[in-house]
Amino acid sequence: MTRIGAIEGGGTKFVVGVGTVDGQIEVMESFPTTTPEETMGKTVEFFRDKGVSAIGFGSFGPVDLNTQSPTYGHIAKTPKPHWSDYDVVGHLKQHFDIPIGFDTDVNAAALGEATYGAAKGLNSCLYITIGTGIGAGAVVEGKLVHGLTHPEMGHINVRRHPEDTYAGKCPYHGDCLEGLAAGPAIEARWGVKAYELQEDHKAWEFQAYYIAQALMNYILIISPEKIILGGGVSKQRHLLPCIHEELRKQLNGYVHHPAILEHTDAYIVTPGLEDRAGITGSLALGVKALEEAQA
Amino acid sequence: MTRIGAIEGGGTKFVVGVGTVDGQIEVMESFPTTTPEETMGKTVEFFRDKGVSAIGFGSFGPVDLNTQSPTYGHIAKTPKPHWSDYDVVGHLKQHFDIPIGFDTDVNAAALGEATYGAAKGLNSCLYITIGTGIGAGAVVEGKLVHGLTHPEMGHINVRRHPEDTYAGKCPYHGDCLEGLAAGPAIEARWGVKAYELQEDHKAWEFQAYYIAQALMNYILIISPEKIILGGGVSKQRHLLPCIHEELRKQLNGYVHHPAILEHTDAYIVTPGLEDRAGITGSLALGVKALEEAQA
Repeated sequence: MTRIGAIEGGGTKFVVGVGTVDGQIEVMESFPTTTPEETMGKTVEFFRDKGVSAIGFGSFGPVDLNTQSPTYGHIAKTPKPHWSDYDVVGHLKQHFDIPIGFDTDVNAAALGEATYGAAKGLNSCLYITIGTGIGAGAVVEGKLVHGLTHPEMGHINVRRHPEDTYAGKCPYHGDCLEGLAAGPAIEARWGVKAYELQEDHKAWEFQAYYIAQALMNYILIISPEKIILGGGVSKQRHLLPCIHEELRKQLNGYVHHPAILEHTDAYIVTPGLEDRAGITGSLALGVKALEEAQA
Repeated sequence: MTRIGAIEGGGTKFVVGVGTVDGQIEVMESFPTTTPEETMGKTVEFFRDKGVSAIGFGSFGPVDLNTQSPTYGHIAKTPKPHWSDYDVVGHLKQHFDIPIGFDTDVNAAALGEATYGAAKGLNSCLYITIGTGIGAGAVVEGKLVHGLTHPEMGHINVRRHPEDTYAGKCPYHGDCLEGLAAGPAIEARWGVKAYELQEDHKAWEFQAYYIAQALMNYILIISPEKIILGGGVSKQRHLLPCIHEELRKQLNGYVHHPAILEHTDAYIVTPGLEDRAGITGSLALGVKALEEAQA
């Protein structure tokens, strides 16, 4: 049976795995992200005897996804030491003469949820992860959204909660969504880590306000059929109903669709693939690369 | 030679035309939008002897675009008298047994610009019109964006300009983008119509601030390869450079792409089809419907 390789290349940890074209991960390993040489070396070693027919790579960003570009498949300029301009796809190609699928980690997760998870069978979805940063990927009309570059949805402008006086932590925009609502902003604002905050802490009111506002903008701009909320925040189960309520309040009856107005709890959900959205999405990138090579 | 019919169905005026598959409008007429019976009657009369092979209809909204829905091709609930639930596609089908393409007016204009206008040859673009309302449509990976419903990009949240004390005019959201930056908001805020305001009026600083903010969010969410600014505002040529500058300021170096950081004036442009973006876009919907029927 055909086996596909998957790499979830995160900024702090790499997860590598092998699975089937129907989305089952059979073997999985992980190791810390260090230098590109060491990390990619371990990755190549893992796949050496696995007999995979294609590999999908969901990468931390920014990355160059333009297949016409001379730096396609490279990590772009990043503050992460050693990785700027590193040619990850080229490195894999040196060792494996098979199709390599490459995209951002959040695009991979969005594709994974659309193919095997909470948005299976739908034509569109949006996956957002809220953790040390905020990132999102979208599938529209069955395809991952790319354009001039890949989306950077975590940096959209949001309105401040009227009681929020925290300046914001984004080095580019100060109080954009990521600057106000990612993990490091929560910690800097309240002096403790998000998971240490009680369920009735004011912090969660702020989080629901900012996340609902971002989701409202995503809905008005791309109208996804399902929204999947991943990352550390999806572990805070008490937050999800607050986001549903705040979203309905902000939309205020606009967008006349029962999925949003009446069944918000089935519209904004946690990942169907749970903690495996990233690695299974990377597998989906590999499956797609194989299909395209065979087409 | 194949002739295609085009209907730009606006809330105040209908424009009907006939053109070729390469986007040339050869005949064009317009009349006020009154009752559906009268307006659609005139429309049918116009096309009766034109021998068109397909018709494209770019409609004012909201509309039902879900081809699986029993009310596909209908105008949805609208405050506009007589038009709620009116079956425009069904009416055309009764008189013409040919493929009918149907979409929102802004999606039509986006498709027109992508096919024949400023974004010709590109894989993605966003068209936004700012006039009595604010609407936008997008082409992503070569296809118009639809999802749960059609986008409603005019209603996204924006941050208030620090000096703007106007409450906002949107009946749903108060001070969303449309509530702050559409024509009626400008008139209500300053007591005169937009075209009566001098070029150095504070109003234009507010407009640039709100429009740049919206464009920044659109860029971060769908990363279009070109942004086309239509509607009344595109006539205010002095506004465009202010939007370019304000956008660069708000992005603050984020999204590392020369198209945005260095060539903003070639990235955010007025319609390549000028005043014919809507009718030519409707023609493009007709061409697409014919191609799909023949596929």
